[in-house]
Amino acid sequence: MIILKRNIVFLLIIIIVLGIFIATSIEIKNYKLSLNQNKNEISKNPPIWPAPFYGQFGNNSILISKEFNFTIISDSTLLLNKTLSKYYNLIFTQDNLINSSSNTLNKLNINLKSKNEILKFGFDESYKLIIKNNENSKLEGNTVYGIMRGLETFYQLIKYNFSDNSYFIENCLPLIINDKPRFPHRGVMLDTSRHFYSVDTILKVIESLSYNKFNTLHWHIIDSQSFPLSSKSYPNLINGAWSKSEIYSYHDIKRIIKYGKENGIRIQLEIDMPGHAKSWSVGYPDLLPHGWNDSTTTIKCPDYDVPLDPSSPLSLPISFGLLSEFSGTDYGYNPNYDDKSNNLFNLTVDDLFHVGGDEIEYQCWNNSKRIKDWMNENNLKTFQDVAKQFQLKIIKQLLKIGKIPVLWEDTFQLFYKDLPKDVIVEIYHDQSTAINATNNGYKIISSIARYWYLEYSYSNWIRAYNFEPTLNISKSNIHLVLGGEGAIWSESIDSSNLFQKLYPTSSAIAERLWSPIYYTNLLNAKSRLQSFRCSLLKRGINSAPLNNSSPLSAFSCYNS
Amino acid sequence: MIILKRNIVFLLIIIIVLGIFIATSIEIKNYKLSLNQNKNEISKNPPIWPAPFYGQFGNNSILISKEFNFTIISDSTLLLNKTLSKYYNLIFTQDNLINSSSNTLNKLNINLKSKNEILKFGFDESYKLIIKNNENSKLEGNTVYGIMRGLETFYQLIKYNFSDNSYFIENCLPLIINDKPRFPHRGVMLDTSRHFYSVDTILKVIESLSYNKFNTLHWHIIDSQSFPLSSKSYPNLINGAWSKSEIYSYHDIKRIIKYGKENGIRIQLEIDMPGHAKSWSVGYPDLLPHGWNDSTTTIKCPDYDVPLDPSSPLSLPISFGLLSEFSGTDYGYNPNYDDKSNNLFNLTVDDLFHVGGDEIEYQCWNNSKRIKDWMNENNLKTFQDVAKQFQLKIIKQLLKIGKIPVLWEDTFQLFYKDLPKDVIVEIYHDQSTAINATNNGYKIISSIARYWYLEYSYSNWIRAYNFEPTLNISKSNIHLVLGGEGAIWSESIDSSNLFQKLYPTSSAIAERLWSPIYYTNLLNAKSRLQSFRCSLLKRGINSAPLNNSSPLSAFSCYNS
Repeated sequence: MIILKRNIVFLLIIIIVLGIFIATSIEIKNYKLSLNQNKNEISKNPPIWPAPFYGQFGNNSILISKEFNFTIISDSTLLLNKTLSKYYNLIFTQDNLINSSSNTLNKLNINLKSKNEILKFGFDESYKLIIKNNENSKLEGNTVYGIMRGLETFYQLIKYNFSDNSYFIENCLPLIINDKPRFPHRGVMLDTSRHFYSVDTILKVIESLSYNKFNTLHWHIIDSQSFPLSSKSYPNLINGAWSKSEIYSYHDIKRIIKYGKENGIRIQLEIDMPGHAKSWSVGYPDLLPHGWNDSTTTIKCPDYDVPLDPSSPLSLPISFGLLSEFSGTDYGYNPNYDDKSNNLFNLTVDDLFHVGGDEIEYQCWNNSKRIKDWMNENNLKTFQDVAKQFQLKIIKQLLKIGKIPVLWEDTFQLFYKDLPKDVIVEIYHDQSTAINATNNGYKIISSIARYWYLEYSYSNWIRAYNFEPTLNISKSNIHLVLGGEGAIWSESIDSSNLFQKLYPTSSAIAERLWSPIYYTNLLNAKSRLQSFRCSLLKRGINSAPLNNSSPLSAFSCYNS
Repeated sequence: MIILKRNIVFLLIIIIVLGIFIATSIEIKNYKLSLNQNKNEISKNPPIWPAPFYGQFGNNSILISKEFNFTIISDSTLLLNKTLSKYYNLIFTQDNLINSSSNTLNKLNINLKSKNEILKFGFDESYKLIIKNNENSKLEGNTVYGIMRGLETFYQLIKYNFSDNSYFIENCLPLIINDKPRFPHRGVMLDTSRHFYSVDTILKVIESLSYNKFNTLHWHIIDSQSFPLSSKSYPNLINGAWSKSEIYSYHDIKRIIKYGKENGIRIQLEIDMPGHAKSWSVGYPDLLPHGWNDSTTTIKCPDYDVPLDPSSPLSLPISFGLLSEFSGTDYGYNPNYDDKSNNLFNLTVDDLFHVGGDEIEYQCWNNSKRIKDWMNENNLKTFQDVAKQFQLKIIKQLLKIGKIPVLWEDTFQLFYKDLPKDVIVEIYHDQSTAINATNNGYKIISSIARYWYLEYSYSNWIRAYNFEPTLNISKSNIHLVLGGEGAIWSESIDSSNLFQKLYPTSSAIAERLWSPIYYTNLLNAKSRLQSFRCSLLKRGINSAPLNNSSPLSAFSCYNS
């Protein structure tokens, strides 16, 4: 009887696995079929970047009439209207002389299935785009963010003829695109401490992320070099800004989060602690370990990596205060800060909150009698224990106020046996840590320096494109890979070279993270990426040529 | 009696000259005095870039109340309202918590003296800005363009305090600025043939020129590599564009001219001829000399410098057609083009029209029997005679349709004895040609390559700043120096590195051309330029650091 039951269970498992396998195979086969139907090669498909999950394309073309509009056939929202209007203005910048007829495309039906606009980890970005003829063309999304992604695809399909002043879609109709991202977390990290970026520049970055179908801006807002974040609970912190004008106000942060929402981009804040804290001390000198910059000691503390001193009576209050303030909760630690009406974010702030944890230079604590006394009192034996205790407090506080903590891999390396499983680990050194962390049940975000850091002279789109974040991760753990990020560490980057460092390398990461793995290869990526780059340039996003440097000689953007 | 009369005339001349000298001296002295009053050094003055013609500054500060507005005390115009609204939004991007009182600045009176909005060479950009207290602060301009320049100065005076959410003007009140440009022609040349720049990018360039108090965009629109200009009279010319989407439509050009007007920037078109014409021939192959690319001949024609063939029956009709079409006249040479309703520019196009004339490679004509036969028929002995005859026809046609021809110095070198004096010569090789041209009575624009071309690796702001366009020009000819231009030749420049090549070098040129010569020295330029660069970055104009390259390490924009 037991054996029979076991056999039935076994049979069921086999059936389920086979079913999944067949379904997946059909999906893959369908896709591949559609790519090759009528002897069309991949290169004959319209150059959509990142490539969609599923696409089926015919050979017909259609003119778009001057009466063309988006026709909402579902309930509408303010954000949906704003999005449609934005893309209408992006697409139709020229005169259109084509009168509507039964042979022209006069409308695209828009079907928004849910009015839920909450932007949080895993939000729905899927969409379905069908273009056949005038009556049967539609764009469907579960959320307005799916509609945004679909409109970006629609934008990329439309061309303009300067000779007869007409818009058209060429050689790909009827068209069915069923699209959704491969990974839920796809972003770029921007460091605004080493150089300050104006709000206008950050908004332009957000806009550009949306064109790439990214969904997250990881904002590494402060670091050792400057503290540009204006805090109401600890107003002296901005004394650590580069200058009196290189600062982000509440008003600025609200604009950035609002613009993120309008572009389907989560704004994930990082307040890096306890390392990289020199800038904190300009306003509150007691935050740093005593004697850290004593020039007479043999063990030197690196100037820009000095960490907070966990034994300082200010360290926890200020750290907790910042977490509360910038996650929009009312757990404020500062008794002077009880103006709830000025609560910054409410529901708009992301559910992931990054607290750094990288590169804690323990030797900086070595000169401080205060720390050593405090270690004795608290029964902490090593500086590693000090770091661990501090970080655990931060993590627990974040969990208490309802946020999911994200930390750089150093934290995992330091004490993964005691690290809560809710923590998401961001990998930047090596894939081996990704394997190790997932084997230990941690969710990870991939941002491995030699592939996805964007500031190096050797960074380029092919290198970035070829890195697969699930590499050597066991199949049962692949669901723990949440996605990845390109990173703009800004020692050698400021506004003047930001976009040429961001793109096209980040665009390659965008496709790696959005498109099916069997599509993400170099087969026809280059020409599609060149086309996509042209579409970025057209919209004022100043991507470098594919050589990742400056232009070598006169060329079309389609060959650069 | 005759001697007496002569003496009286002589005396009068002496009195007038003395009068001018004394007046100028007083003006200079006043300015210098104001710079040193109360032992204030130049560096204590507010960091306005480019420095104003006359400024007088006190030591007081003032808060700007949240009720602040621009109050028009004269007649108004749509453009004036749009300009005030633009600067209001540029300045007031943050919360302002300051209530109005008798001690705050609550308004700036705006006095527009003339509604004349015609943008042409020499238009009035002067303004007077007085800020004392709430009742006696005003900005006065003869034209709306003077108001624009004054608002830019006002913008640069205002700071924000992130600690108490207030706007203020610091340590310089009462303030009187009497400002006007030193030269009437101050611009940047943009080459859109070697790389195509999107309309959005060109609009951003125009916006940036206005912040620099430039007044001209010299648009080198076509060249050998591509022909992005969509012509209704000769529609096949756009076959020479890089691609079917790297083209400027009428609609685009109108947007660019309209935006120029909104920023006080003349859009001066250049249609370079007869050299650099390879791209013309894609649509009209017969325009080029027969046999130009014959590989068997010993004298080679450089691929990208092949000129038009003046003996082609198409050369003059197409050249004249383009001049007519793009200067908005109705002297169209193409009988098929008589749609006057589609006239492009009407009054909005600039009165200066550039027709190139540089680098005509005569040897490219050497293989063509057609040219040689035609030379015999027309009694032309040398290829130089061919070029001269063609250019004279172009110049006369331009004068006939009411435009002032501008040509590169090659034309002056080729036949200055027969060149009409109406022609403006743009100098790019050497100051000696500037001296020679002015000695021969020609007006010049200075754009000498080794100082004011912006694409070289050695280009930098100090080099550009130190070049004085009137150098060694005799005093009696200085009025013939109309101004100058920084030049973006785009073989190695595209949208991705455009702004870091444009700025800060062009900003240095902007001050050289706007500010009094006795002020234009390196004394306090660096810190003012750094401040100005910060103000550009804030507005999304991504100037390189002052090293003209990428950032060397983490820094404030005020030290970069």
